[in-house]
Amino acid sequence: MPAETRKSWVLDSRPQGRPTLGNFRMEEQPLEEPGDGKFLVRTIWLSLDPYMRGRMNEGKSYAPRVELGEVMTAECVAEVISSKHPDYKVGEIVSGQFGWTTHAISDGEQVRRLDPEAAPLGSALGILGMPGITAWTSLNVLAEAMQGETIVVSAATGAVGTVLGQLAKLKKLRVIGVAGGKEKCEWAVENLGYDVCIDHHMAADELAEAIRAAAPNGVDIYHDNVGGKTLESVVPAMNDHGRIVVCGVIAWYNGEGIADAMPLPKVWSNILVKRLKVQGMIVFDYFDRYSEFLEEVAPLVKFGQLSWRETVVEGIENAPNAFLGLFDGRNFGKLLVRVGPDPSEAGN
Amino acid sequence: MPAETRKSWVLDSRPQGRPTLGNFRMEEQPLEEPGDGKFLVRTIWLSLDPYMRGRMNEGKSYAPRVELGEVMTAECVAEVISSKHPDYKVGEIVSGQFGWTTHAISDGEQVRRLDPEAAPLGSALGILGMPGITAWTSLNVLAEAMQGETIVVSAATGAVGTVLGQLAKLKKLRVIGVAGGKEKCEWAVENLGYDVCIDHHMAADELAEAIRAAAPNGVDIYHDNVGGKTLESVVPAMNDHGRIVVCGVIAWYNGEGIADAMPLPKVWSNILVKRLKVQGMIVFDYFDRYSEFLEEVAPLVKFGQLSWRETVVEGIENAPNAFLGLFDGRNFGKLLVRVGPDPSEAGN
Repeated sequence: MPAETRKSWVLDSRPQGRPTLGNFRMEEQPLEEPGDGKFLVRTIWLSLDPYMRGRMNEGKSYAPRVELGEVMTAECVAEVISSKHPDYKVGEIVSGQFGWTTHAISDGEQVRRLDPEAAPLGSALGILGMPGITAWTSLNVLAEAMQGETIVVSAATGAVGTVLGQLAKLKKLRVIGVAGGKEKCEWAVENLGYDVCIDHHMAADELAEAIRAAAPNGVDIYHDNVGGKTLESVVPAMNDHGRIVVCGVIAWYNGEGIADAMPLPKVWSNILVKRLKVQGMIVFDYFDRYSEFLEEVAPLVKFGQLSWRETVVEGIENAPNAFLGLFDGRNFGKLLVRVGPDPSEAGN
Repeated sequence: MPAETRKSWVLDSRPQGRPTLGNFRMEEQPLEEPGDGKFLVRTIWLSLDPYMRGRMNEGKSYAPRVELGEVMTAECVAEVISSKHPDYKVGEIVSGQFGWTTHAISDGEQVRRLDPEAAPLGSALGILGMPGITAWTSLNVLAEAMQGETIVVSAATGAVGTVLGQLAKLKKLRVIGVAGGKEKCEWAVENLGYDVCIDHHMAADELAEAIRAAAPNGVDIYHDNVGGKTLESVVPAMNDHGRIVVCGVIAWYNGEGIADAMPLPKVWSNILVKRLKVQGMIVFDYFDRYSEFLEEVAPLVKFGQLSWRETVVEGIENAPNAFLGLFDGRNFGKLLVRVGPDPSEAGN
C-alpha cells in the first residue's frame, strides 16, 4: 500500500439556495488499514449528480442527508488496494457509494464488482450505472412507453437524457428533447437520435409554443428531470392518459423560479381532466431490476448501438467547482471526476 | 301518454367563476312521440354532481362541454312511457344520461335497465351508480389499498366519500375523513365507520396539524375530491410510496383559493422525494368494470352492510338552486332531484 493520505470533501455548511465553494471543506488524513472483513479502495472515477444538492439540506430528502463534517456522498468506481475481506482481492475493480474521497474502507455492502474488459470503467457510473437504469426504468416500468407515442425528455443531453432518448428511439417513439444551448441540441439530434431538440433559452410561453409545434399529436410521456419552466410548458401539451415521471427538480433546487411557478390548481386540473399519472421516481427503488436492465442495455453498449458522452474533470480538488457547474448546465453528458489513474485506459 | 309538456333546463350563459341562477334557463316544449328504434322516458330521479361545473366552461373538460342553449347534462333514473324500441317496454325503469329534463327520447345507447325490486331506485345514481363505482375503483384499482394503511377522504360525507369510507373500513384501513361542519363529521364517524373526521373550517396550518394528529403513521392514500386547502394539508403528511387519486377540484372550480395555493415546486418535491403516484381519475374510463363492482358492492347494499344518505330536492324547478348548493357544501350525501313519482316507493 502506497504511503498516501486520504483526501475528502466534507460538508462544511448548508447552502442557502445555490451552493457555493464555501459549503465544502477538504480534509486530509493518513490512510488506515482495513479491519477484518473489510477492504480499502482508491477511487478512480467519482460521479457528480444533481441529487446531491438535496442531501445538503437540513430537511428530509429521499436518502439520509449529509451531516456537517461528513464526507459528501457519491457513487464511485475504485480499485481494491488492501483487503481483509474474503470476497474482494487486491486489484479488483468495484463500484460503490464511497463519496467525494480518494480512498475509502468498505465492508462490501452495496458494492458491485466490475469487469474492466466489458466496457470502459466510467460507464458503470453512466450508461450502465444509475443514469442508465434510471432511463430504462422510467421508460419501460413507469411510463410503459409504447411504439408511436411521443415523449419529451428534459436535460436531454444529461446523464439520464442521453440514454433515455436513445432507448425511446429504439422503441420507435417520437422523441423530443429539451436542453440548454445550440450545441447540446444539435448533438442530441445528430448523435442521440432525438427527432427534435428545443433550446430552453427562451420565454416560458415561447417554450410552450415550441413544444406544441414539436409534438403535433400531443405529448404522451414527459420524463421530468428539471421541473421549472420546462414542466410548465409540457403540462398543457399532455394528452389524455399521459404519464409524467418526476425524476428531478433541479430548476427549483436552489429556490429559483418558485414565486412565479405555474399555479398548482392549473396543474391539478390537467391531472384530473386528462387523467394523467404523475409518478415520483428514485432509482434506488429499482435496483432489483438491475440484471434485467443490464441484459437489455449492456449488449447495446457492447455493439456500439448507444452513444454516450462524458464531461471529465481532473482531480479530486476540482469536485466542488464541477458540482456547481451542474446548476449552470455547464456539463455535457455524464459528469465525472477522474480521481486516480484508470487501469483500463491506454497510457495509464 | 299523458298530455304533458317537456320542461328542461338549458345553459343560458357560461359562468365566470361561481355559477349563478342566471346561467340557466327553463324551456318548455310539447312532448314528442319517439321515432322508430327509440323510446320516450319520464324522469324520476335526476343526479346533480360537481363535474357538471366543468361542462359549463368554454374550454376542454373530460367530456364534451354543454353548448349554449343545450340541455344541461345529467344521469337520471326514468320510466319508459312510450316505445318503438324492440328492447324497451313501457313501464320499464332505466338509467341513462337524459339531462336536466322531465322527459327524454333515447335510442338505448348507454342506457341500463334497473330492477326496482333489488334496491331503491335512487341508489342507481349513488351507491350503486357513478359515485359507488368511483369509490370502489379509486380504492381498489388506482390506490391498490392494503389492510393497515391510512387513507384520507375529502368530502367524506359526499356521494363518493360515503361509499369510499365504508369500503376502506371493510378493508381494514385507518380511515380519516375531512368534511364541512360538525354534523357531517359526527355522522361520518357514527354511521360510516370513519375512525376520525376533521371539520375543515379552520386555518390551513391548523388543518395540516389536525391531519398529522389523526394519522400518526402518516398518510398512504389520499382520495382527493376537492383540491384546495385540504390537498395542501395532506401532501406534507403523505408517506413514501403514497398514492393520491385526483377525482375532483371543487375547491378551485370557481376560481377561488388559486392565488394563495401551495406553490407547485413544493408539491413536486414531495412527489419526487416520497415517490408519490398522483393519478387523475374520471369514472367513465372504468365502466367496463361495472359488473365486477356490482358483484362486490350490491350484496353489501342488499344485506344492509353499507349506509348511505341522500339529500332530496323536490321538483325540476329547483335543480339549479340545488346545484349551486354543491359549492357551498349544502348537500349531505348524494344530491338528487325528484322529478316525478317513484313507483318503487310506498304511497306513490
